[in-house]
Amino acid sequence: MACEHNPKLDLTTMVMVRDSALDRAVVIDRVKSWTGLSFPGGHLEYGESLTECAIREVREETGLAIEAPEPCGIIHWVHRVTKDRYLAFLFRTDIFTGRLVGETGEGRICWMDIGELKERPSTNGFDQYLPLFLSGGFRELYIEWDDDNPWGNLSAKDIR
Amino acid sequence: MACEHNPKLDLTTMVMVRDSALDRAVVIDRVKSWTGLSFPGGHLEYGESLTECAIREVREETGLAIEAPEPCGIIHWVHRVTKDRYLAFLFRTDIFTGRLVGETGEGRICWMDIGELKERPSTNGFDQYLPLFLSGGFRELYIEWDDDNPWGNLSAKDIR
Repeated sequence: MACEHNPKLDLTTMVMVRDSALDRAVVIDRVKSWTGLSFPGGHLEYGESLTECAIREVREETGLAIEAPEPCGIIHWVHRVTKDRYLAFLFRTDIFTGRLVGETGEGRICWMDIGELKERPSTNGFDQYLPLFLSGGFRELYIEWDDDNPWGNLSAKDIR
Repeated sequence: MACEHNPKLDLTTMVMVRDSALDRAVVIDRVKSWTGLSFPGGHLEYGESLTECAIREVREETGLAIEAPEPCGIIHWVHRVTKDRYLAFLFRTDIFTGRLVGETGEGRICWMDIGELKERPSTNGFDQYLPLFLSGGFRELYIEWDDDNPWGNLSAKDIR
């Protein structure tokens, strides 16, 4: 008996940890599974809420302990053919303690000026979703992609 | 070949449409699949964001056209044994046009005073999650349930 294909749904978090005084944020220069700048985050685990997931992922990937992450948006990456949906729930916070670990299996961890972040050329869609973290309120970005357009040049809806 | 059990993840929305002037909200007195009071909402469909899902479900179930739904929380109902997770993403709005349809396949649709809503005895967990719609900010409620405790008497975490 073959397994029916139900579209897969991946639920993840992504967090901008911002140092307001110095106007900079924690970034990961990723080397694992894909390369480029990103914010810390990862998959929701059994037994936890999205807020708890955000706090755990930041601690595991950066060494920082954050508080009061504020939801600021959602990114939907949906595969045009399989309909699989990868959903990233976005948080931001400027309350943290601890020191950056410098390096993890995911890539290099460092502080980067917000100005530099905005200017960096991006090949992984980071420039598309960075505004969701920087603008006030809560926004959703819906991106369709397929194997020829891995970063979703096909279509993107920005919903306020 | 047997299919492996991956925990199922259901992604839905639930919306409180509030008439601020009269301090009342739209409720559904449900008859389908389970009974009791609830707010309109339903499953996320291919091609839409959670905000779009919220707007569509309210239109389909109540006849009202809403605007600017504001995210106010998340409820996680997680089955203790299968680990299946039913996730409801909560919105509220007081901007709407149109008239209530009165009745759908889901149940009877009507306005109810917020005061009465709070007092109503509940058998389906409505009293547990109503506060997420009424308090400011964004909160998550994590509820574990099993077949002997269908409405999650087992444990509930309220995360601010």
